[in-house]
Amino acid sequence: MKQMLGLALAGLCVAGSGAVMADEGMWTMDHLPIKQMQQQYGFTPGQQWIDLVQHAALRLAEGCSGSFVSANGLVMTNHHCANGCLSQLSKGHADYMSNGYIALKQDDEPKCPDVELNQLESITDVTAQVNAATNGKAGADRVKAERAVDSKLEQSCVNGDAKTWRCDVITLYNGGRYALYKYRRYQDVRLVFAPEQSIAFFGGDPDNFNFPRYDLDVTFFRAYVDGKPANTPQYFKFDTQGPKAGDMTFVVGNPGSTRRGLSWIELSATRDFNIVPGYAILSELRGMLWQYARGGEQQTKESQELQFGIENAIKVYNGWLQTLGDDSFVQHKREQDASLRQWMTATPERRAKYGDPWTELDKAQQRGKDLSTRFMMLERGLGVGQFGELFNDARTLVRAAAERAKPDAERLPAYRDANLPAVQQQVESDVPVYPAYEQTLMAWSLGKLRQSLGADDPTVHEVLGKDSPEQRAQQLVSGSKLADPAVRKQLWDGGEKAIEASSDPMIALARQVDTESRQVRKSYEDDVVAPTDKANEAIAKARFDRDGMSSYPDATFTMRLSYGKVVGWNENGKPVPPFTHFDGLYKRATGADPFKLPDSWVKAQSKLDLSTPMDFVSDNDIIGGNSGSPVINREGHAVGLIFDGNIHSLGGDFVYDGSNNRAVAVDTAALVEAVRKVYNLPRLADELSNGHL
Amino acid sequence: MKQMLGLALAGLCVAGSGAVMADEGMWTMDHLPIKQMQQQYGFTPGQQWIDLVQHAALRLAEGCSGSFVSANGLVMTNHHCANGCLSQLSKGHADYMSNGYIALKQDDEPKCPDVELNQLESITDVTAQVNAATNGKAGADRVKAERAVDSKLEQSCVNGDAKTWRCDVITLYNGGRYALYKYRRYQDVRLVFAPEQSIAFFGGDPDNFNFPRYDLDVTFFRAYVDGKPANTPQYFKFDTQGPKAGDMTFVVGNPGSTRRGLSWIELSATRDFNIVPGYAILSELRGMLWQYARGGEQQTKESQELQFGIENAIKVYNGWLQTLGDDSFVQHKREQDASLRQWMTATPERRAKYGDPWTELDKAQQRGKDLSTRFMMLERGLGVGQFGELFNDARTLVRAAAERAKPDAERLPAYRDANLPAVQQQVESDVPVYPAYEQTLMAWSLGKLRQSLGADDPTVHEVLGKDSPEQRAQQLVSGSKLADPAVRKQLWDGGEKAIEASSDPMIALARQVDTESRQVRKSYEDDVVAPTDKANEAIAKARFDRDGMSSYPDATFTMRLSYGKVVGWNENGKPVPPFTHFDGLYKRATGADPFKLPDSWVKAQSKLDLSTPMDFVSDNDIIGGNSGSPVINREGHAVGLIFDGNIHSLGGDFVYDGSNNRAVAVDTAALVEAVRKVYNLPRLADELSNGHL
Repeated sequence: MKQMLGLALAGLCVAGSGAVMADEGMWTMDHLPIKQMQQQYGFTPGQQWIDLVQHAALRLAEGCSGSFVSANGLVMTNHHCANGCLSQLSKGHADYMSNGYIALKQDDEPKCPDVELNQLESITDVTAQVNAATNGKAGADRVKAERAVDSKLEQSCVNGDAKTWRCDVITLYNGGRYALYKYRRYQDVRLVFAPEQSIAFFGGDPDNFNFPRYDLDVTFFRAYVDGKPANTPQYFKFDTQGPKAGDMTFVVGNPGSTRRGLSWIELSATRDFNIVPGYAILSELRGMLWQYARGGEQQTKESQELQFGIENAIKVYNGWLQTLGDDSFVQHKREQDASLRQWMTATPERRAKYGDPWTELDKAQQRGKDLSTRFMMLERGLGVGQFGELFNDARTLVRAAAERAKPDAERLPAYRDANLPAVQQQVESDVPVYPAYEQTLMAWSLGKLRQSLGADDPTVHEVLGKDSPEQRAQQLVSGSKLADPAVRKQLWDGGEKAIEASSDPMIALARQVDTESRQVRKSYEDDVVAPTDKANEAIAKARFDRDGMSSYPDATFTMRLSYGKVVGWNENGKPVPPFTHFDGLYKRATGADPFKLPDSWVKAQSKLDLSTPMDFVSDNDIIGGNSGSPVINREGHAVGLIFDGNIHSLGGDFVYDGSNNRAVAVDTAALVEAVRKVYNLPRLADELSNGHL
Repeated sequence: MKQMLGLALAGLCVAGSGAVMADEGMWTMDHLPIKQMQQQYGFTPGQQWIDLVQHAALRLAEGCSGSFVSANGLVMTNHHCANGCLSQLSKGHADYMSNGYIALKQDDEPKCPDVELNQLESITDVTAQVNAATNGKAGADRVKAERAVDSKLEQSCVNGDAKTWRCDVITLYNGGRYALYKYRRYQDVRLVFAPEQSIAFFGGDPDNFNFPRYDLDVTFFRAYVDGKPANTPQYFKFDTQGPKAGDMTFVVGNPGSTRRGLSWIELSATRDFNIVPGYAILSELRGMLWQYARGGEQQTKESQELQFGIENAIKVYNGWLQTLGDDSFVQHKREQDASLRQWMTATPERRAKYGDPWTELDKAQQRGKDLSTRFMMLERGLGVGQFGELFNDARTLVRAAAERAKPDAERLPAYRDANLPAVQQQVESDVPVYPAYEQTLMAWSLGKLRQSLGADDPTVHEVLGKDSPEQRAQQLVSGSKLADPAVRKQLWDGGEKAIEASSDPMIALARQVDTESRQVRKSYEDDVVAPTDKANEAIAKARFDRDGMSSYPDATFTMRLSYGKVVGWNENGKPVPPFTHFDGLYKRATGADPFKLPDSWVKAQSKLDLSTPMDFVSDNDIIGGNSGSPVINREGHAVGLIFDGNIHSLGGDFVYDGSNNRAVAVDTAALVEAVRKVYNLPRLADELSNGHL
């Protein structure tokens, strides 16, 4: 802890205070900082509290967090975590993403085509097994051995029932430790309530990652089992009052990824060959989508989910670049690396034990630079339709057919038996496909392919022939039948034979690029990922040897607990108070998007208690993936719903700075008041207050 | 020289050859590398040769190069340097940019609304005068003193006749030297011939900065004086055979800017706070324009000039980032700086003489970081309509009115008497304005303003009020009368009173942001530019003291001569031959844009000698701004027309690497053959062959 805090203070502390901000950390449930919490807050969680937290908290498999908030499977998450479901259910004239959705009774709760919930059942240390399998191996051998041991561990954990269980081997501490996470799956997840986009995301992109903030970024789902609401005795009871300033708060959720433990060698390569090019590509796509949406309401509806995601990602990339361009941060990173490197070579014994992983790491990064464009264009699919539904379905079908024919241990990880139910659910889901939008995304994407690889590249020739990207996109989209879920189901069920026999042009494209795409991926895995992992593992071991396992591992989209308190911060010398209230929302409204209130809120104004707290900030250490996480108190009751971080939180990917890094949450008091008085839903409000239907 | 070559070889040489590539340098006409040319090529230019080169070469004031190629004012430049003129003349259904333009007789030569040519008359060293004026001054005092001395020198040089003369004080060697450049102005410039965009820019963005290449990127203008073709006895006679491999070649033109002499302190700040954000903004605009152009032929016509410029700029930015992310380059830069810094502090005398400009430089960069967003949004105009015609006209009118009321020495440099004719010509020119396109650009731009400064920023509030960017853009564009050149002329002639009285919403916007915009500019100039200049001047002086003035100064969009030879290079171990020929063009054509040949070329195929060389590369050291430069031979005859560099030339902004940095030119043989046989213009072909009408 101390070491990382030193980094935070040296690198980024702006307040100049000598106070140690001790609320850092995204802790695993089997390694909680019991002593620190006791020392700083006089709080020691009992086993019952820990059990509750572990079982009431949820992961949304597609990349968010959530929690059970009633005994009848009611799930709280963010509106922006439900974008996919809301878009997919909006057939014909309906636009649930913009206009919201209300289920007045249980029969009105429609199934979300794609949502899968994961409830953490257990964590098992498997470091010894993984190390035994990969010991002494490098490159392709290491990739193969790791895949085989992961598959074996996961299959034995799932034990033949992949519909109920999901198991993942997780790399922690950059390879210092491996753990098997076992989850219960919920695949029948239904929509209960979503407010209008204009209140869920009030202030839009301009306010995103900012505070003061006035968003009701919530969606309620319900988990079903055997066609009935799930029985979920472990849930977070709603505290209808919300928290007070200074209250101790916990966030439990699934932070996606951080890179605090990485060396500057890897971070600088990531910046130059990954973040900077990615930032430009996302920006280009943003401009394109902005203009596409100006075409009208239909075009807005078609593109808004992607546009939101892109705008959010751009702010994140921008935040990363700020930190990675911060001189003192860079300086500190370099020194930290140099100090460990020196320690590792200070004695002949250490030199023999650790070797020189730093040079290996550097070589792997250089190789990554050479491969990155082709990897991004072909394997990530940026040059062949990555952002459209049709190519993604085609690739999944082509890959799944080939992979399912192999033994589990030899498959690409996404297609192992343990993961197949989620893949199948997604590829067969009945989501709307918009031809003009698909063609736009495909034409743009094929243009990027030609631009990035060059007009003379053989793959570009093969994909485009003598056509322009626009012509080719038109043929692909108008000729494909993959918009029909029945066609996709047929191809899934038909396996390799059906794929080979298919004359669908999108399937043909996915087949056409698959060989090279797999080759690029294999080169990337064998020559970049494997040596990077191996080097990082050696470095991580040296760090454990020197410092002990006193800290938390980088985030891995697995369950983590963060502790902290409700507290504002200072911005340019001015204090930012931790709460906003309903009255501020009405003051901020302008009548023009994205500051236009929905009718429901305009009408309800006179009925509302305008002093109700709306959003608040705390110094809990979170990151992307924590969206939808509950904020809970010492009693294990829900007091808020995480939906964002402030602008300073973006640097949290690389370093936590407690002086200004803040998590942003909706207050439970606002949720109950809005559900009852704005949306007139006593049934839902009562379920929240009582904890059951 | 040696030192810089060392850099090139250490940092970027890929061939691994030990050969010293000695063709580096963009030399000023008063400091030519006579000795090197003699040693390497056995060539010594006589005074007549130098005089010819100086007077036949031209600068296009808006940012390109050109040359006289007949005694009757015929000017050769690039098609892409004439984009502005071609777009502006395309009223109604005409689209000269796409379809080309042919003047069959003199009466058919229409005046380009905006083009100004500059012919270099003389260069005078004014280092002593400038140093005397700025000596011991810092910050705002320095800015003021420098502006005053520049104004005085320029006014005395123009001597009351700004219609004929243009004078600029130029900073050379990063402040090591100052020189006064005196030019003869040509403002009556008419269009003679332009080919179709599809042959001028065959291969489009995919082939841009690549080779082999097949472009006829040419436009011929004619300079007029008193309504008649100008009398221009100093011109480059056309060599209708073009050059051979290995021939010595010279490029004379106006390279815009290089940063080879800057320290890593400034380069890294430039990368992080200027290039990376700029790269993202340009990418976003590119995506937006791509989708806008998909709206139809009209939209394509409206946006193609900007789209071309943006795509080109993006490749340039990308090339910069490659070099600035190259480990060995960075390492070498750091070492170079450290060595000079050490030399400067090695004795008490030197410490006293030079002080510590490095720390000052670093401080100035940090301040630049704080100011950069507001500077870009307001003073550059990115957030208030920078890319539209209307805001630019409004800003120029508002600024010009205020500035013209001040003494010359106190004005912003662009509005000094010496520059006013060019400003006036541009603001009064009759160019088409497309309302839907203007609104698109403005709405996008205002969105950037709000996004960058935040929705709570007072300036954002003032500009947008309670409107969305789209609503505000609609009011601004539909309400403005500035599309009418008569209205603009009235406002120019009316000066400050007319501007104050105007109710035009675009004028109102320009007035509204002017105070803050000027303030940001002033802060930037006083706190960033002035200390940076002062520090660089001190560093440059130390470098002169240590190394002597053995090298050439960084490019400054003034006349430079580069010498070299026609030569290919090795790409991934394979030789790239220096010439392409007509037959290769026909082989590369696909029928789909941007590889679709215009009808004229399809029809002419059987008549052409397909072995005619089309484009070629040489190792002349050029950079953006050199577009349109003639390639000449030892006899002072034109053998080619520069229009591009290869992809390796982009790093030339920071370092010249002779092993693979190549200039790309159209062969004069191709120009004559095409004019005669594809376009059937014996009049023009004869003028090129004979050197006169």
